[in-house]
This record gives sequence, structure tokens and C-alpha cells, in this order.
Amino acid sequence: MEFFAWCMIAAGFGMAIGSFGTGLGQGLAIKAAVEGVARNPGASGKILTTMMIGLAMIESLAIYVFVVAMIILFANPFTAQVMELAGK
Amino acid sequence: MEFFAWCMIAAGFGMAIGSFGTGLGQGLAIKAAVEGVARNPGASGKILTTMMIGLAMIESLAIYVFVVAMIILFANPFTAQVMELAGK
Amino acid sequence: MEFFAWCMIAAGFGMAIGSFGTGLGQGLAIKAAVEGVARNPGASGKILTTMMIGLAMIESLAIYVFVVAMIILFANPFTAQVMELAGK
Amino acid sequence: MEFFAWCMIAAGFGMAIGSFGTGLGQGLAIKAAVEGVARNPGASGKILTTMMIGLAMIESLAIYVFVVAMIILFANPFTAQVMELAGK
Amino acid sequence: MEFFAWCMIAAGFGMAIGSFGTGLGQGLAIKAAVEGVARNPGASGKILTTMMIGLAMIESLAIYVFVVAMIILFANPFTAQVMELAGK
Amino acid sequence: MEFFAWCMIAAGFGMAIGSFGTGLGQGLAIKAAVEGVARNPGASGKILTTMMIGLAMIESLAIYVFVVAMIILFANPFTAQVMELAGK
Amino acid sequence: MEFFAWCMIAAGFGMAIGSFGTGLGQGLAIKAAVEGVARNPGASGKILTTMMIGLAMIESLAIYVFVVAMIILFANPFTAQVMELAGK
Amino acid sequence: MEFFAWCMIAAGFGMAIGSFGTGLGQGLAIKAAVEGVARNPGASGKILTTMMIGLAMIESLAIYVFVVAMIILFANPFTAQVMELAGK
Amino acid sequence: MEFFAWCMIAAGFGMAIGSFGTGLGQGLAIKAAVEGVARNPGASGKILTTMMIGLAMIESLAIYVFVVAMIILFANPFTAQVMELAGK
Amino acid sequence: MEFFAWCMIAAGFGMAIGSFGTGLGQGLAIKAAVEGVARNPGASGKILTTMMIGLAMIESLAIYVFVVAMIILFANPFTAQVMELAGK
Amino acid sequence: MEFFAWCMIAAGFGMAIGSFGTGLGQGLAIKAAVEGVARNPGASGKILTTMMIGLAMIESLAIYVFVVAMIILFANPFTAQVMELAGK
Amino acid sequence: MEFFAWCMIAAGFGMAIGSFGTGLGQGLAIKAAVEGVARNPGASGKILTTMMIGLAMIESLAIYVFVVAMIILFANPFTAQVMELAGK
Amino acid sequence: MEFFAWCMIAAGFGMAIGSFGTGLGQGLAIKAAVEGVARNPGASGKILTTMMIGLAMIESLAIYVFVVAMIILFANPFTAQVMELAGK
Amino acid sequence: MEFFAWCMIAAGFGMAIGSFGTGLGQGLAIKAAVEGVARNPGASGKILTTMMIGLAMIESLAIYVFVVAMIILFANPFTAQVMELAGK
Repeated sequence: MEFFAWCMIAAGFGMAIGSFGTGLGQGLAIKAAVEGVARNPGASGKILTTMMIGLAMIESLAIYVFVVAMIILFANPFTAQVMELAGK
Repeated sequence: MEFFAWCMIAAGFGMAIGSFGTGLGQGLAIKAAVEGVARNPGASGKILTTMMIGLAMIESLAIYVFVVAMIILFANPFTAQVMELAGK
Repeated sequence: MEFFAWCMIAAGFGMAIGSFGTGLGQGLAIKAAVEGVARNPGASGKILTTMMIGLAMIESLAIYVFVVAMIILFANPFTAQVMELAGK
Repeated sequence: MEFFAWCMIAAGFGMAIGSFGTGLGQGLAIKAAVEGVARNPGASGKILTTMMIGLAMIESLAIYVFVVAMIILFANPFTAQVMELAGK
Repeated sequence: MEFFAWCMIAAGFGMAIGSFGTGLGQGLAIKAAVEGVARNPGASGKILTTMMIGLAMIESLAIYVFVVAMIILFANPFTAQVMELAGK
Repeated sequence: MEFFAWCMIAAGFGMAIGSFGTGLGQGLAIKAAVEGVARNPGASGKILTTMMIGLAMIESLAIYVFVVAMIILFANPFTAQVMELAGK
Repeated sequence: MEFFAWCMIAAGFGMAIGSFGTGLGQGLAIKAAVEGVARNPGASGKILTTMMIGLAMIESLAIYVFVVAMIILFANPFTAQVMELAGK
Repeated sequence: MEFFAWCMIAAGFGMAIGSFGTGLGQGLAIKAAVEGVARNPGASGKILTTMMIGLAMIESLAIYVFVVAMIILFANPFTAQVMELAGK
Repeated sequence: MEFFAWCMIAAGFGMAIGSFGTGLGQGLAIKAAVEGVARNPGASGKILTTMMIGLAMIESLAIYVFVVAMIILFANPFTAQVMELAGK
Repeated sequence: MEFFAWCMIAAGFGMAIGSFGTGLGQGLAIKAAVEGVARNPGASGKILTTMMIGLAMIESLAIYVFVVAMIILFANPFTAQVMELAGK
Repeated sequence: MEFFAWCMIAAGFGMAIGSFGTGLGQGLAIKAAVEGVARNPGASGKILTTMMIGLAMIESLAIYVFVVAMIILFANPFTAQVMELAGK
Repeated sequence: MEFFAWCMIAAGFGMAIGSFGTGLGQGLAIKAAVEGVARNPGASGKILTTMMIGLAMIESLAIYVFVVAMIILFANPFTAQVMELAGK
Repeated sequence: MEFFAWCMIAAGFGMAIGSFGTGLGQGLAIKAAVEGVARNPGASGKILTTMMIGLAMIESLAIYVFVVAMIILFANPFTAQVMELAGK
Repeated sequence: MEFFAWCMIAAGFGMAIGSFGTGLGQGLAIKAAVEGVARNPGASGKILTTMMIGLAMIESLAIYVFVVAMIILFANPFTAQVMELAGK
């Protein structure tokens, strides 16, 4: 049963820590973009493009974590083995 | 029973840590937006647009965490197995 | 009984950590807004609008945590199962 | 009995951590407001308004924590179940 | 007996951590106020007013913690139940 | 006996942590005051007044902690109950 | 069974911590790129190229972690041995 | 015996942590004072006065900690009770 | 079996922590490169060269960690001995 | 015997942590003094005086810790009681 | 068996922590080099030389860690003794 | 035997932590001195004097720690009592 | 056997932590050197000399750690005694 | 045997932590020296002298730690007593 408890922890905290870092990273990027638009509104198109590419890159990191969390929750490759061990 | 206890922890702390980081990230972004509006009120429309796109990106990170927390609380894929193990 | 103890922890600390981060984030945003008003009082309307949108976004993060804490305290989906396990 | 001990911890530390973060956040906001008044005393009314709105938003976060702490202390939804379990 | 020990911890450390954060927050605010008075002595009245409002808001956070600590020490709602459990 | 040990910890560390934070906060305030006096000696009266009000506010936080530590050491409300429990 | 639990932890937290750091690193890089575009829109092509090369380098670090997490989850080289040991 | 061990810890570490924070705080204050004297030697009297008042305030925080440590070491209110409990 | 569990931890966390630091380091380097290109587009070739040499040096650090993680997972020199010990 | 072990820890680490903080604090003060002398050599007498007063104040904090460590090592008020308890 | 588990930890985490710090250090150095090239492209040869010498010094630190990790994994001086002890 | 183990820890780590902090503090002071000499070589005598006084003050803190470590190692006041207790 | 496990830890982590700090320290020094060369290429000889002396000093610190790690691994003075104790 | 294990830890980690802090401190000092030489090459002799004196002071701190580590490893004053205790 300990196994399932740690799955919960890994999925819940993992997702949280991943969001923490990528959230800060995105915050830094958006901060720069907003300041850029305020200083140079004429270049807002290019700024937005650059920002979106960057945010997508960071978002991909968060999605890796999300994928791992989903695998742990719904496609856990060890469930069968654990049930077998516990069922003995 | 330990399993359910750790579910609580994973959901409660996970959501909290996720909000911590994304809250700071959003704070950085809003800070820049507000400063931008104060310096260049004429560009406030573009600034607000840029900020909203960015905040939505960060919000999506928090929502990943929220989704994971909700899955842990209400659609926990391991509850049946844990009950079966404990019921033995 | 351990289960209920950890519920308390998850709700109490979770809410606290969530408030910590979002409080700092809001503090950053308000700081910028207040500075903006001091520098450019004529744009205080726009600044206030931008700040309120941003604070609402951050507040939503804190409310996610609050919702999770309330679910843990009052709509805990595992209480029945835990009582059943303990009642055996 | 462990349950009641952890209730104490959750209420006492939760409130403390929540106050820590929101206290820092308010400190940042007030710092900006005071600097703003010193630089531009003529706009002190608007600055004070902006600051008060912001502080109220942050205060609301601290109050969420206070509410959770009070629920844990005085309207704890699990007390009956814990007494029942222990009374067995 | 563990319960009473943790009450001590919750009250003592809770109050301490709460004072830590609010002390830092007040320090930031006072720093800004003192700098403001030094730069613009003529506005010292308004600066003091703003500072006092802000400090009162932060002080309220510390008082929440104090209230929780006092409740834990002198109006502890669980003492009867704990004595009953231990008395069994 | 564990109870008395934790009382020591709560009083000793609580007071220490409280002094840590408020000491830093006061340091920030005094730093600003001293810089202010150096830049604008003519306003040293007002600066000193502002600083003293602020330091008194921070000192009050440290005194809350001191009060809690003294209560834990000399007016501990749980001593009787603990002795009774241990005396059984 | 402990083995499978720690696999979960290693995969979930490992991915999360890796994303945290690389997310911050990418945030720094994007921040600089966006500021650069805002200051010098004419060089946005070169800036974007530089940024993409850099982000790809950082992304490779995150992918190392992802690869390790996938190996732990799906191509775990020790599963057979652990099953053999537990099956004894 | 555990009780006396924790007394040592509380006194030794408490004093140390308290000195850490107040030492840093005093360092900040002295730093500002020395810089002030270097910039404006003519105001060194007023600067010294301000600094001494501030340092005295911070010193008082360290003395609170010292008092608590001395009480724990030499006027420990629980020694009798602990000896009685252990003597049983 | 504990041995295999700790292998997982060492590989998963080790890779993650290594990526964290090198990710931050690369972020700093790329940040400077992108700013450089924005300020001086004419030197972008030299800047890119310098950046690539530096990133390669940092990448080598991450690859050391990757190599160690791979050795732990696939060329673990202690597996035979551990199996022998456990097989006794 | 645990008691004497913790005495060692309290004295050794306490002194170390106290020196850490006060060392940093003194470093800040000396840094400012040296900078001041470099900028304004003519005021080096006053600067040195101010610095020495400040360093003496910080040194006093370190001496409090030293006193507590010496009391723990050589004038430990609980040694007799601990020997008595252990001698039983 | 615990011995081999800790070897894994020492090698995996040791390498990771070493890469973390040296990665950050190299990042700082490269950052300065890239900025230098952007400001003064004519001196890029000298800058690159200086940077390479510095990076080699830092790399040597990482290689010390790598050497220690390799010794732990492949030339562990205690393996024989541990096998002997366990074989008893 | 635990007692001697903790003595080692107290001496080794205590000295290390003390050196950490005082090393940083001295680094700050020397940094300022070197900068001062570079800016104003004519005052290098006075700067060096000031620096040496300051470093001696910080060194004294490290020497307190060294003294405590030496006492723990070579003039440990509790060795006899511990041997007596263990010899029973 | 625990003894050998902790030797691994002490050597592996010790080397890693030592490299972390000295790596950062060298990074700071190299950063300054590279910036110096970029600003004043004519003085690159003197700058390089100064840097090399400094790096050698820092390298010596890392070598102390390396020496200690090597002693622990290959010239461990306690191996005989431990084998004797375990061989009993 | 635990005693010898902790000796390893104290020597290995102690040396590492001591090098960490002093390495950072030296890094700060060298950084300033290198910058100074770059700005004012004519004063490089005096700068180098100042730097060397400072580095020697910091080095002495690291040497204290080294001495303590060597005492723990090769002149451990407690080895006889521990062997005697274990030999009983």
C-alpha cells in the first residue's frame, strides 16, 4: 500500500515543483515582454512572437512533468507487479 | 489508511506549492505591466493584452496542478486496489 | 486516526504556504502600482484597473488552494473508506 | 491523541507561515507607498487609496488562513469521528 | 502528554515565525518612511500617517498569530477531550 | 518529561527566531535612519522620531514572543494536567 | 515493494526538479531575448536564432532527465532482479 | 535526562541563532553609520547618537534571548518537577 | 532490494540536480549572449562562437552526470555482489 | 550519556552559528569602513572610531554566545542532577 | 548491502552537486566573456584565452569529483573488506 | 560511544561552519579594501590599517570557535564522567 | 559495514560540496578577470597574473578537500580498528 | 563502530563546508582585485599586496578546519577510550 501512497506524492508534489520553477521562469519572460511593449509599443508584434516561442519552450518542460505525473497515475507500469507481490 | 493520508498531503501541499511559484511568477509579470502602464499610459491596451496572454500561460501551470489534485481527490485510480489490499 | 491528523496538516499548512507565495506576489504587484501612481497620478485609473486584473488572477490561485483545503475539511472523499477500514 | 496534537501544529504554524508571507508582501506595498508619498506628497490621497485596496487584497489571504485555523480549532469536522475511533 | 508538548511548540514557534516575517515587513516599511522623511522633511506628517496605517495592517497579522497562540495556551478547545482520552 | 523538554525548546528557540527576524527588521530601519541623518542632518529630529515609532512597533512584536516564552516558562497552563497524567 | 515506490519518487521528483532549474534558466534567456527585441527590433532575427540555439541546449538537459525518468519507468534494468529477490 | 539535554540545546542554539540575526542587523546599521560618517564627517555626532540608540534597541533583543537562556540554565522552573517525575 | 531502490534515487535525482545547476548556468550564459547580440549585432558571429564554447563546457558537466547515471543504471559494478549477498 | 553528547553539540555548533552571523555582520561594517577611508581618507579617525564602537557591540553578541558555551562546558548547572539520575 | 546503496548515492549525488556548483561558476564566467566580446569584439582573442584558462580551472574541480565518483564505482578500496564482513 | 561520535561532529562541523561565515565576512572586507586601494592608491596605508583591525576582529570570532573545538577535543570536561557512566 | 558506507558518503559528498563552493568562487574571479580584459585589453597580462594567483589560492582549498577525500578512501587510519571490532 | 563513521563524516564534510565558505570569500576578494587591476593597472603592486594579505587571513581559516580534520583523522584523542569501551 506504501507504493500507492508514494505514487500520490510523486504525482502531486512533482507537478507542483515543476509548476513552481516553470511558473517563475515564465514570470521572468513575461515581465521582460511587458516592459518591452511599454518601452517600444511599435515592436509589440515581434516581442509577442519571441515571448510566445519562449513560453512554449518552458511550457514543454511543464508538460514533461505532467506526462510523467499522468503515467504515474494512469499508466503505471509497476501496478501489476506490485499487486502480484502484495497478492502473494 | 496511510494511503489516504498521503493523498491528502499530496493534494493539499501540491496545490499550495504550485500556487506559491505561479503566484510569484504572476506577481513579477503584473509588476512589470503596472510599471509599464504608469510609464506609458498610451500603450496600456497592448500591455494589458501581453500581460493577459502571459498570465494565462502561467495560470495553465497552476491548473495542471489543480487537475492533478482533483484527480488525486476524486478520480483516484488506485482507490479500488488499495481497498482490495486492505480488505484482504 | 493518522489520516485525520494529516488532513489537518494538509489543510492548515497548504493554505498557509499558498497564502505565503500569493501574498508575496500580490505585494510585488501592489508595490509597482503604488509607485506608478506616485510617479504618474494622472494614469491612476488605468493603473488601478491593471492592478485589479492582476490581483484577481493571483487571488484565483489562492482560491484554488482554499477550495482544496475546504474539500479536505468538509467534503473529504475518503472519509467513508477510512471509517470503514478503521471500523473493521 | 496524536490527532489533537497535529491540529495544534496546523493551526499555530499555519497562521504563522501565512502571516510571514503576507507580512512581507504588505511590507513591500507599504514601502512603495511611503516612498511615493515622500516623492509626491500631492498625490498622497490616490496613493493611499491604491495601497489600501492592495493591502485589503493581501489581508484577505491572511484571513483565509485565519478561517482555516479557526475551523481546525473550533469547528473541526473530524472531532466526532476521531473520538468515536478512539472510544472504541 | 505529547499533545501538551506540541501545544508548546505550536504557540512558541508559531509566535516566533509570525514575528519574524512581520518584523521584516515592518522593517521594510519603516526604512522607506525614514528615508522619505530624510529626503522630504516637509511631508513628514503625511509620511507618518501612511506608515502608521501600514504598520497597523501588518501588526494585525501578528495579532492574528498572537490570538491563535493564546487560544492554544489558554482556551484550548481540545483539552477536555484529550484528558478524557488519556483518562481512559 | 518530554513535555518539559519541548517547553525549553519552544521558549529558547522561539525567542531566538523572533529576535532574529525583528533584529533584521530593526537593522533595516536603523540603517535608513542613519543614512538619512548623514544626508540631511537638519531633519535629524524628525528622523529620530519616525525611527523610534517604527522601532517601538517592531519591538512590540519581539515582546509578544517574549510574553509567550514567559508564559511557557512561568505560567504554563498545562503543567498541572501534565503532572496529573504523569502521576497516574 | 519499496523499490517500486522509490522508482515513482525518482521519476516524478527528478523530472520536476530538472524542469524547475531548466525552466528558470530558459526564463532568464527568454527574458534577455525579449528585452533585446524591444531595444533593437531590427536584429530580431539574429536574436531569435541565438535564443533558439541556447534554449535547445537547455532543453537537451531537460531531455536527459526525461530520458532517465522514462528508463526508470519503462526500461528499468533492475525489475527482473527485484522480482526474483521478492519472489524468493 | 532527555530534558536536560534539550535544555542545553535550547540555551546554546537559541543564544546562537539570536546572535546571528541581531549581529546581521547591527552590521547593517553600523555599515550605514560608517558610510554616513565618511560622506558627512561634520554630522558624525548626530550619526553616532542615532546609531547608538538603534544598536541599543537591537541589543535589547539579544538580551531577551540571553535572559531566556539564563533562565533555562540557572532558574529553570521545571527542574523540580522533572526530578520528581524521574525520581519516581 | 534497498540497493536497487537507492540506485533509482541516485540516477533520477542526480540527473535532475545536475540539470538544475547546469541549466541555470547555461541560462546565465545565453542571457548574456542574447543581450550582446541585441546591443552589437555586428559581432554576433564572435558572440555565438564564444557562447557555444562555453555551453559545450557546461554541457560536459551535465554529461558527466549523465554518464554516472547510465553507469548506475546499466553498468552497475555492484549488481553481481549484491545479488550474491542477497542470494545467500 | 546522551546529555553530554548534546552538551558538545550545543557548545560547538552554538559557537559556530553565533560566529557565522556576527562574522558576516562585522564583515559588512568593516567593508563600509574601508570604503569610507578610501573615499575620504581625511575622516579616517572618525570612521575608525565609529567602526570600533560598532564592532564592539557586535563582538558583545558573540561573547554572549561564548559565555553560554563556556557555562555549558565548565559550569554546567545540570551535571550533578544528570549524574544522580544516571547513578540510580 | 547498505554499503553498496550508499556508494550509489555518493557517486550519483556527489557528481550532481559538483556539477551544479561548477556549472553555475562556469555560467558566470561565460556570461562575462560573452558580454565582453559584445562590448569589445576586437579583444575577443584575449577574452577567449582568459575564459578558457578559467573554465579549465573550474573544470578541474568537476574532474576531481568525477575521479572520486569513478573511484567509488570502479576502484572502491573497501569492497573486499565489505564482502569479507558480509561473508562471515 | 555515541558521546565521542558527537564530539567529533561538534568539533569538525563547528569549526567548518564558523570558518564559513567568518570567511565570507573577511571576503567582504578584503573586497572593499582592494577596491579602495585601486581607486585611491595614495591612501593604501590607512586602508590596510583599517582592514587589518577589522580582520583581526573577525579572526577573533573564528578563534573562539577554534578554542571551543580544541576544548571539546583535548580538554573535554565530561570525558571522566562519561567513562564512569559507561564503565558501570 | 556502516563505517564503510559513511566513508563513501564523506568522500563523495565532501568533494562535491567543496567543488561547489570553490567553483562558485572561481567563477566570480574569472568573471571579473574576463570583464577586466574586455575593458582594458592592454592590462591583460597583469590581470591574468592576478587571476592565476587567486585561482591557485582557491584551488588549494579544493585540494585540501581532495586530500581529505583521498585519505578517507586510501589511507583511512581507522580501517584496521574497524576490522578488528567487526572481527570480534 | 559508529564512532569511526562519524569521524569520517566530520572530517570529510567539515573540510568541504569550510572550503565552501572560504572559497566564496576568496572569490569575492580576488574579484575585487582583478577589477582593480583592470581599472588601475599602475597600482597593481599595492593591490596584489593587499589581496595577498587578505587571502592569507582567509586561508588561515581554512587551515584551522584542515587542522581539526587532521586531528580527527590522525591524532584523535578519543580512539583509545572508544577501543576500550568497545573492547569491553
